[in-house]
Amino acid sequence: MKRIADSTVRRLSIYLRFLEEFEGRGLATVSSDELARRGGTTSAQVRKDLSFFGSFGKRGLGYSVPELATALREILGLGREWRVVIVGAGKIGAALAQYRGFKQRGFTIVAAYDTNPDKVGGRLDGIEIRDIARLERDVAADHPDIAVLAIPAEGAQAVLDRLVYAGIKAVLNFAPMSLHAPSDVTVKTVNMAMELEGLSFALTNRE
Amino acid sequence: MKRIADSTVRRLSIYLRFLEEFEGRGLATVSSDELARRGGTTSAQVRKDLSFFGSFGKRGLGYSVPELATALREILGLGREWRVVIVGAGKIGAALAQYRGFKQRGFTIVAAYDTNPDKVGGRLDGIEIRDIARLERDVAADHPDIAVLAIPAEGAQAVLDRLVYAGIKAVLNFAPMSLHAPSDVTVKTVNMAMELEGLSFALTNRE
Repeated sequence: MKRIADSTVRRLSIYLRFLEEFEGRGLATVSSDELARRGGTTSAQVRKDLSFFGSFGKRGLGYSVPELATALREILGLGREWRVVIVGAGKIGAALAQYRGFKQRGFTIVAAYDTNPDKVGGRLDGIEIRDIARLERDVAADHPDIAVLAIPAEGAQAVLDRLVYAGIKAVLNFAPMSLHAPSDVTVKTVNMAMELEGLSFALTNRE
Repeated sequence: MKRIADSTVRRLSIYLRFLEEFEGRGLATVSSDELARRGGTTSAQVRKDLSFFGSFGKRGLGYSVPELATALREILGLGREWRVVIVGAGKIGAALAQYRGFKQRGFTIVAAYDTNPDKVGGRLDGIEIRDIARLERDVAADHPDIAVLAIPAEGAQAVLDRLVYAGIKAVLNFAPMSLHAPSDVTVKTVNMAMELEGLSFALTNRE
């Protein structure tokens, strides 16, 4: 398949949320104009985004809400369970373990890891906290799909290297740094403090 | 000033964190190579990123850690207090109100807003929850700098329009949708579920 831009994938996620709202309200069809408005784009872009994945909708009738929602869930890989490990049982790790949206979308947290002996053996919202020394052995046995890095920047690259070597192909990184990974490993970095600093920068450097 | 790319600002945030680690360890200088490694970039890019803002460092000696940290805090607008309002006293709003990193970086939450009469008048980690009907009046009186939107997608654009009309110039949006704002208003969208879907998409659509 053609390489799909991150911005397209983000819009697919937005369209899906909108469609699910429509499903909840029992609406049968949606126009590309309505999807465009929600996605902050044009109806031509909506049609282009969807055209990568097949032929959807009927000219003049719009899209069937349940059909397009089902297709997008499949495209986004939401029709199955994804097994997630959290590395770092601190505040961010705890917030993630409690986050209900994970489970609803098919992301099952199978274990958490930490280096702190006071935490190892305990639980994070019901999830076992294991010694990070076990990481490679556990990954080989449990086959998690996704790792969430919720540790300080200092050790993040070393842990990522271990995860990659163990075979993990998708990582959500909360450490405030850019991580290096081979091209077949997808790493997404999320950091709220950095987003806030982007805002304070914009406010400080306005014309 | 020249328009600075978002990616540059993100790297400045990363450099600053790294410098603060170095400060904590009592180190006096850092090389552009070290900054580059942390920022996932090249030392030429580090020098370019910093050159937008002045002349830093000495050839062969690297950068003074305290000087560059101070300069970056100023560039990122972290030398002052930013007043933040949170719109939406749900789970995300509550998590944000508890987040200590806000305060540490000079972001003070002055109020939270909600439409739910059961919540209005209560407190979110010590922060007053006010009726959203008061939003415009309060913004005119309190002059917050930044608004955080922690509400569902459906009402987000309407609330953003009210904030913009009231004079807010910087918004952190957690609603899973693209919001439209005038060019002098900076909106950053953060959504963890969408980041996760980006990963499940990547895993599903690998070659």
